[in-house]
Amino acid sequence: MTTATTATSTSTSTSEEVSSAADIGALTVDARTGADRVRPRFATRTKAYGGSSIWTDILGLLKQHPDPIYFGDGSPAKEAIPLDLMQEASQRVWANALDVLAYGDQQGVPALREVIARRMDRLGAKVDASEVLVTAGSTQGIELACRVFLDPGDVVIVEEPTFLGALETFATYEATIVGVPVDEHGMDMDALAETLAREPRAKLIYTIPTFHNPTGTTMPVERRQRLVDLARQHNVAILEDDPYVELRYDGEAVPAVKAFDNRVIYLGTFSKTIAPGIRTGWVAAPSDILAMMLSAREVMDISNDRITQRTVLEAARTELDDRIVHAREVYRPRRDAMLGALAEYMPEEVTWSQPEGGFFIWITLLASFDVDTFAHAAAAQGTVFFPGDWFYHDKSGKNRIRLSFSTVTPERITEGVRRLGEAIRAELYG
Amino acid sequence: MTTATTATSTSTSTSEEVSSAADIGALTVDARTGADRVRPRFATRTKAYGGSSIWTDILGLLKQHPDPIYFGDGSPAKEAIPLDLMQEASQRVWANALDVLAYGDQQGVPALREVIARRMDRLGAKVDASEVLVTAGSTQGIELACRVFLDPGDVVIVEEPTFLGALETFATYEATIVGVPVDEHGMDMDALAETLAREPRAKLIYTIPTFHNPTGTTMPVERRQRLVDLARQHNVAILEDDPYVELRYDGEAVPAVKAFDNRVIYLGTFSKTIAPGIRTGWVAAPSDILAMMLSAREVMDISNDRITQRTVLEAARTELDDRIVHAREVYRPRRDAMLGALAEYMPEEVTWSQPEGGFFIWITLLASFDVDTFAHAAAAQGTVFFPGDWFYHDKSGKNRIRLSFSTVTPERITEGVRRLGEAIRAELYG
Repeated sequence: MTTATTATSTSTSTSEEVSSAADIGALTVDARTGADRVRPRFATRTKAYGGSSIWTDILGLLKQHPDPIYFGDGSPAKEAIPLDLMQEASQRVWANALDVLAYGDQQGVPALREVIARRMDRLGAKVDASEVLVTAGSTQGIELACRVFLDPGDVVIVEEPTFLGALETFATYEATIVGVPVDEHGMDMDALAETLAREPRAKLIYTIPTFHNPTGTTMPVERRQRLVDLARQHNVAILEDDPYVELRYDGEAVPAVKAFDNRVIYLGTFSKTIAPGIRTGWVAAPSDILAMMLSAREVMDISNDRITQRTVLEAARTELDDRIVHAREVYRPRRDAMLGALAEYMPEEVTWSQPEGGFFIWITLLASFDVDTFAHAAAAQGTVFFPGDWFYHDKSGKNRIRLSFSTVTPERITEGVRRLGEAIRAELYG
Repeated sequence: MTTATTATSTSTSTSEEVSSAADIGALTVDARTGADRVRPRFATRTKAYGGSSIWTDILGLLKQHPDPIYFGDGSPAKEAIPLDLMQEASQRVWANALDVLAYGDQQGVPALREVIARRMDRLGAKVDASEVLVTAGSTQGIELACRVFLDPGDVVIVEEPTFLGALETFATYEATIVGVPVDEHGMDMDALAETLAREPRAKLIYTIPTFHNPTGTTMPVERRQRLVDLARQHNVAILEDDPYVELRYDGEAVPAVKAFDNRVIYLGTFSKTIAPGIRTGWVAAPSDILAMMLSAREVMDISNDRITQRTVLEAARTELDDRIVHAREVYRPRRDAMLGALAEYMPEEVTWSQPEGGFFIWITLLASFDVDTFAHAAAAQGTVFFPGDWFYHDKSGKNRIRLSFSTVTPERITEGVRRLGEAIRAELYG
């Protein structure tokens, strides 16, 4: 329905008169229809949404080869998703669903929170079910931490590089993002100490200490202890994002950072052990912080899907652990294939991380390398990945590449890395 | 694991020394354990979460009688939930789920957006599937509108009274809430015109034009036209929240406000026609606004549950419309029972609304009435409801009561209103 200019409108211009001026005071005229057209007056924070979508970029890269091998995926392998377990669980839950379809379970189904608390015991963290909030993935956990802690201009300290989704959330909250370098053992604690001393507005330290995204590295015990000490000393909250911890392929388990200080805000998820499409994660936090996050969450979207919560509960109560054992057997040969292929096909100047778990290997090239132009050359050769600069808030890291091995078979991994090696050689030696 | 004060901590106090001072500089000491305890430094917006929960209040009221009749529920009746339809749909969706369990469907499953766009045709609104975003209920739609429009101090104009969940969201975004009175035909347009002229920082007009929560009234065509004219004139976005529109029991359908101006941001939901526990709603908005809301949503929690989206799609594609016809037959006698009982049991001084649909009837008492103390007296008599002042941002409206008839059988409605009438007589005449 097209609505013409009405009696109550203050605009007396015809569409012709205003066609040369896009904006007449508060009113904008749509030249196509001549009708008044409200110009949205967006909030300041929407500047964070201005850039082009990475998915547009990735889709463009995937179109450059008839059979691209995609090392960008952060999803679990289809072979590792416990589909039959979820199918059966879903049927049982729907059979008794009538009483759980109204509003409710804002904090999460109590039995699911209990199961989650017991899973956290294994990480050395003593968590009561009352300290758990079920969330729409750990992405919503990051969102909730921002909501209860961040005023515009507050400082969030992040590992450099870090998960790009978290960078987007922090930008949405108009935070100042300050990076701390990582080495093969995670965040540099001396650099963190200096940063904390310099940034009185620091509110959050965001860390992915185990099988880090994108580098694949794991922070050892000593650094975890130092991290909680520093955070406590400066009264800054730690946000521990731990999606990959159950996917360890070798080496010894390290306790969660939360095991060193129960004040840590811990984010867990079933996205990597079941599937991301079911949007089920959790926050474990001390009760004063959790109460605030729960209030925020109830206002935001009330609760997780109540049927899915119970479906996850049924799966977790029964065979999920066995399926995770199986999942590790899916991923280990993929990681090994990638490490083997890198050793075989990469030129000498190239180095990479040696992850004991998770989904990612991080490649470092010569400082002069420009990954953004190279990504196109590599795509033309049939290998697509996430350019390293996407994981830096200042878009540095142009000599880095993140490779994910989770959704690619060992044979395809070998072929993809071979193609990548060729593309790198062509780039380096012309 | 209890972590003692460590070498890097600046605190040298013993727990005894600091027990009299709760706060020593940046550090707070937990007197119980003597350990350092980080004091959360919450964001300014968290003041919105300070009050006691309405659910605590309601649970307290429900405990005051052995068999309370609860008129507070905003959920659909169990008799109206299309359970078997959802059970069958869920099984079909899970049977083919392996390809839809990764990340994806951020805007919503295209076929579901198409179904939604066609449902909006019936409301007179021309919406393309590309202008639809599937959300975690319309609560998340309100959240997203705030996120893309509101800086702290911006003004949101609301009907007075209005949906209390929306008031909470606006408070979270540190908006200034300005109320416009409603009469039996919804928002007073002369008062809206004055408010818009007075409030240059107005960004959003929030309205529930059809079967309004809490009053049950519906805005006629002329007011809808005037609303969009005024909003356009002042370049203020309209947020139309329309959860009850499909539940009309008599009278003639009125086109959506969005039918009068496609710039309106429309919020729909399956919470009332299927169930709230599945957390599925939508936004329909012009493409420039929708693109911003989609960006915000991807950062916030990525997407709705992908299985549930498809389950709703299957239901909507098959028998949902028939089930909604049936649902109206469940609710109409409940509304009629409530109107009949009010006519029979209320003292002369009491008036109430005559809704043609939705879930709510709004009761007005003498100006001197205090609903907060009365709610306890009524609960002791076995009737529990939402006090009217909860629906006012300034907590006025203490002579109002919202009654919901959706989840109570006609017999219980009659008995509950009889009890309520007795309690009101006792309050008025002692």
